[in-house]
Amino acid sequence: MPEPIEFYFDFSSPYGYLAAEEINTIAERGGRDVVWRPMLLGAVFKETGGQPLLGIPMKGDYARHDLERSARLIGVPFTLPASFPFMSVAAARAYYWMYDQDPEKAVALAKALYREAFGQGRDIDSPAAVVSVCAAEGLDPEAVSAALSDPAVKQRLREEVEAAVAKGVFGSPLILVDGEAFWGHDRLSQVALWLQRGGW
Amino acid sequence: MPEPIEFYFDFSSPYGYLAAEEINTIAERGGRDVVWRPMLLGAVFKETGGQPLLGIPMKGDYARHDLERSARLIGVPFTLPASFPFMSVAAARAYYWMYDQDPEKAVALAKALYREAFGQGRDIDSPAAVVSVCAAEGLDPEAVSAALSDPAVKQRLREEVEAAVAKGVFGSPLILVDGEAFWGHDRLSQVALWLQRGGW
Repeated sequence: MPEPIEFYFDFSSPYGYLAAEEINTIAERGGRDVVWRPMLLGAVFKETGGQPLLGIPMKGDYARHDLERSARLIGVPFTLPASFPFMSVAAARAYYWMYDQDPEKAVALAKALYREAFGQGRDIDSPAAVVSVCAAEGLDPEAVSAALSDPAVKQRLREEVEAAVAKGVFGSPLILVDGEAFWGHDRLSQVALWLQRGGW
Repeated sequence: MPEPIEFYFDFSSPYGYLAAEEINTIAERGGRDVVWRPMLLGAVFKETGGQPLLGIPMKGDYARHDLERSARLIGVPFTLPASFPFMSVAAARAYYWMYDQDPEKAVALAKALYREAFGQGRDIDSPAAVVSVCAAEGLDPEAVSAALSDPAVKQRLREEVEAAVAKGVFGSPLILVDGEAFWGHDRLSQVALWLQRGGW
């Protein structure tokens, strides 16, 4: 069995949401598993001098339009949350806390968090909002709540983000296939081809 | 006959080069003509605070790799010129000068300039280099040379760039289809679909 592909994303990245809706199907067709690895773009932007896409003049307006158009094309709902960009630390902590117990449930939780934010356009930045999504996924609200402020969970996320930056992850979504990086929702078709052909 | 699509690009944009190799085929399949409109990204970056892609930490290294990989995928040669990014004013002036005499020849010249830069990896920033490519395309070197410093030609380009910015062109390549903007070589598949379906 070949290595799983790695799916890096920030929960506050709308293109990450679109990719999250497609990545597992693409990987499955290519005979691969996927490891989902949420990270924090803020840490990356310190390295690259980047800034949130939608705040950039001209480019931001385009991206809003492009996101809606791309979502329609792949048939998923899309709404930008009222407060955007937003802090995604709580969502990412909840993910890794769940991942260490049950990776499959963690992916289901990640999809639920993304759909809450960009499918429904609801805020997922506060711990309370994240706990509420977790509860709807059948998790114990008190356990999640405790995890979000657990120093060990905080440290776990910090290490993941550092590891991502060290691996050259500079944007969201970014997919690593056997060390080969593909950046952006609009590169998923190349990921699919790469898996199918074993490179080119 | 529906309106032609508009292909905006900067001669110093490597993703513009990749798009230039494909745009006419895509348009033809969709029953459209293409108007090629070189612009100057420097003018746009003043509005957006953008910077040349390849100079950005992490992202720049990725882009170099992605360009080579994407060029291999579509089967065109790719070499980054030694001096990059480079000034593309002379190339753009030569284009519009030719366009006002013969639009088809202007497109052939644009392809030749792009191939010189990113196919062969040779400099096209100086007027002398542009004149040399024009001469290889059968144009009169003295006439081209005079055009490159002709105030009317300079003004022609300035107006084109202003018009592009006014239309919201913020990157290269950017394709306008009936007022619908698609940015990036990696959006050409959406351009093809849009033409085929008449939107979605």
